Amino acid sequence: MTAPRKLTPAECLDLVPPSGVGRVAICAPTGPQIFPVNYVVDTESIVFRTSAYSALGTLAAGAEIAFEVDSVDHDHATGWSVVAAGRAEAIDDEAELDMLRERGLEPTAWAGGLRRTYIRLRWTSLSGRVVGES
Amino acid sequence: MTAPRKLTPAECLDLVPPSGVGRVAICAPTGPQIFPVNYVVDTESIVFRTSAYSALGTLAAGAEIAFEVDSVDHDHATGWSVVAAGRAEAIDDEAELDMLRERGLEPTAWAGGLRRTYIRLRWTSLSGRVVGES
Repeated sequence: MTAPRKLTPAECLDLVPPSGVGRVAICAPTGPQIFPVNYVVDTESIVFRTSAYSALGTLAAGAEIAFEVDSVDHDHATGWSVVAAGRAEAIDDEAELDMLRERGLEPTAWAGGLRRTYIRLRWTSLSGRVVGES
Repeated sequence: MTAPRKLTPAECLDLVPPSGVGRVAICAPTGPQIFPVNYVVDTESIVFRTSAYSALGTLAAGAEIAFEVDSVDHDHATGWSVVAAGRAEAIDDEAELDMLRERGLEPTAWAGGLRRTYIRLRWTSLSGRVVGES
């Protein structure tokens, strides 16, 4: 078994699927929180949906966040993990929102509730690790 | 598609595999960070390994952390996510460490490096969500 290897930002970009399920970490006053989210990659940024009144919806806009996506085969101890970090911003522009909806951020799955908020993370760091390389 | 449903702590415990790969979120001075970890569930706590000199190894002991594990089928928009949160503590007792090594926290995979630290999270909250229930 080889040691974990750090990935370059270019390798990270190659690994992250164009859309899927990831996890967002945020520092709440009570401590760190993690939320699964549906996301799409959109030109050097990650966009995800949340409910306007959820903890994530309340805390994310304007905050420093970390987004993680991975693919792990526990039985074979192989896989990769990529983390994008930076400041999150709410998306308010309607044309931008229409385009994102067409790209696959469906109004289903992890973000429940009636009012939905779209958050964009223009990452300032992109890092990752791969394990179990042969 | 039904809305996400909150899980009870008992449902969470039923879903979390006894060992596997999860993710730990922690609040660093520069913002939130997420790390994949190999873990085992050990009587109302989560135990994971990290490198002594990693960011996680440096920050985790004594800190509030959140641990997440999930199982997601993106194509069918189904899955569950469980988050355990509380204060992390380093494990120093050798007999305890031997028992944990026997239980499957192998010296491989996500935690590289020569010196390894074992961290225990006795959670004070256990919450989760399920999506895509039919």
